[in-house]
Amino acid sequence: MNKVIILNNRPQGKPALNNFKFISEELPVTKDGAVLLKTVYVSVDPYLRGRMNDTKSYVPPFELNKPIQSGIIAEVIESKQADFKKGDFVSGSLEWKEYQTSNGKGLQKVNQNEAKLSSYLGILGMTGLTAYLGLTEIGLPKKGETIVVSGAGGAVGTVVGQIGKLLGCKVVGVTGSDEKVDLLTSKFNFDHAINYKTTPDLKEAVKSACPKGVDIYFDNVGGEISDAVLANINKYARLPVCGAISLYNKTEVPVGPRLQPIILTKSATMRGFIIGDLSGKFPAATKQLTAWMKADKLKFSETIVEGFDNIPQAFIDLFDGKNKGKMIVKV
Amino acid sequence: MNKVIILNNRPQGKPALNNFKFISEELPVTKDGAVLLKTVYVSVDPYLRGRMNDTKSYVPPFELNKPIQSGIIAEVIESKQADFKKGDFVSGSLEWKEYQTSNGKGLQKVNQNEAKLSSYLGILGMTGLTAYLGLTEIGLPKKGETIVVSGAGGAVGTVVGQIGKLLGCKVVGVTGSDEKVDLLTSKFNFDHAINYKTTPDLKEAVKSACPKGVDIYFDNVGGEISDAVLANINKYARLPVCGAISLYNKTEVPVGPRLQPIILTKSATMRGFIIGDLSGKFPAATKQLTAWMKADKLKFSETIVEGFDNIPQAFIDLFDGKNKGKMIVKV
Repeated sequence: MNKVIILNNRPQGKPALNNFKFISEELPVTKDGAVLLKTVYVSVDPYLRGRMNDTKSYVPPFELNKPIQSGIIAEVIESKQADFKKGDFVSGSLEWKEYQTSNGKGLQKVNQNEAKLSSYLGILGMTGLTAYLGLTEIGLPKKGETIVVSGAGGAVGTVVGQIGKLLGCKVVGVTGSDEKVDLLTSKFNFDHAINYKTTPDLKEAVKSACPKGVDIYFDNVGGEISDAVLANINKYARLPVCGAISLYNKTEVPVGPRLQPIILTKSATMRGFIIGDLSGKFPAATKQLTAWMKADKLKFSETIVEGFDNIPQAFIDLFDGKNKGKMIVKV
Repeated sequence: MNKVIILNNRPQGKPALNNFKFISEELPVTKDGAVLLKTVYVSVDPYLRGRMNDTKSYVPPFELNKPIQSGIIAEVIESKQADFKKGDFVSGSLEWKEYQTSNGKGLQKVNQNEAKLSSYLGILGMTGLTAYLGLTEIGLPKKGETIVVSGAGGAVGTVVGQIGKLLGCKVVGVTGSDEKVDLLTSKFNFDHAINYKTTPDLKEAVKSACPKGVDIYFDNVGGEISDAVLANINKYARLPVCGAISLYNKTEVPVGPRLQPIILTKSATMRGFIIGDLSGKFPAATKQLTAWMKADKLKFSETIVEGFDNIPQAFIDLFDGKNKGKMIVKV
């Protein structure tokens, strides 16, 4: 039998285990033109929370009683089509199932001799592309500028900071524990990191960490952390909005200081994006990320959770910041 | 003697007459290299409110007990320098004085045979440039798209709407009286206009006026009107922030729905600007505006108030929307 995780009901606020349900189904049969895939690594990401609401977002909502989908690395265990052979590993947007078939559309072969398999979900996958293209295409960094990254200890944040440093900028991270503060400055090359949970005046802390002001604010969180950073932006600041994890679980419309006055007086540009918007740039970006990775210039942190049954909990733990870097479930 | 208007004290909230003080001083003496100017038309603009606060903004704050400055058309009545002769008319950022001298720096000659003098403060001046460049450089309109303009009955708003139509877009204005609604649709070629003061559900009204959604929101006001428009934006919407008149007089930090979720899910770009940011584009923009004006394709509305003594009241009246189009004082 084949284990499958479906959306049992839509989360109200923070997701909980009972939003998910495990069901069993017959093992799928591989038809001509299809491959049979065995799930190896499952990416759990904050943006999936948005798809669990019944509202139009940048991707359609998950349907009730249907399997959840996310980025997955799988092994081809049977192939009835020419593009893939048994033993290949592939990456794609797949369902939370132990086994599934695919017609191959949207699957990309990945090479475990080039990089470890899980990195195709991270530094060489959506995470790395989001960090690199969000920073370079929307943040438009210039050497010597100051970048602040929120959600800095997360998968995208740790990569944004390192790329900022590689491009000659000063990088300050905002994160949620002293342990992550240490990691950011020791392992990930950030110039400075701030624990927002223990900092009484975040606005002042950002000001003190960025004496020349903030030129780029790479925002993964929204909310009060962003208020504190925006109070310190420079003229012509760029504000890529990559995520808003602090707001995803709100059950009422979150309110905060209106942004128009600061956007206006600073001639600032705030731009939201999802990585699909920038797909034309993927090949060049992947090439650059691979080069940096091979030259050991980009470190990548993963929190690997073991076991298919733990996928929902790993996802829930994202909202408590229990991950350091990319959260991945090894099946 | 020479009448001068100085900043007597800084407004708290809405500006009032006692924030200004009239003083008399000796007529200035024209030194070598200088010109003596007689003020003819004075532009009063919402953005001046920001300069009356003692906070860093896009331009430095006015100093207490010093003259206010704004866009002015003046006549050269004495010249001791080669660039200007008696009888020339000039435009520049000048002080609220009946007479003043200048070394000529920043002054531009204007030709009253080409266009009426007041239009150099409006359609051919800062107002026209702000509308044209804000819309084309930041709004990036494509034929067939839908533009919503707030503060649509103001100087910039009426021009933005007409340019939007000239560029093949659908244009909807939001304004504050039925009279202005009529003007926008009859005189200024807007497809539709909404009186926000009498519309119970503005979000629904915008939705109904823009069945294909909003591609560009040219924002002059901020606040709740902007909330209603932003709830209707399309994927990849552009949001030039040109002004925030509804927020200028707030004495506490205004709050509202957080914008990051909509900016993110719509991959939208919100960009603040002041016209000085785009000065490299002035010559081409002026050429286009002049051509449209001469072809009678751009109508311009002015509210002309008579008398130097009425400058402060004319400025205050902007915040009650008493102007239709550009508010100008004829001295």
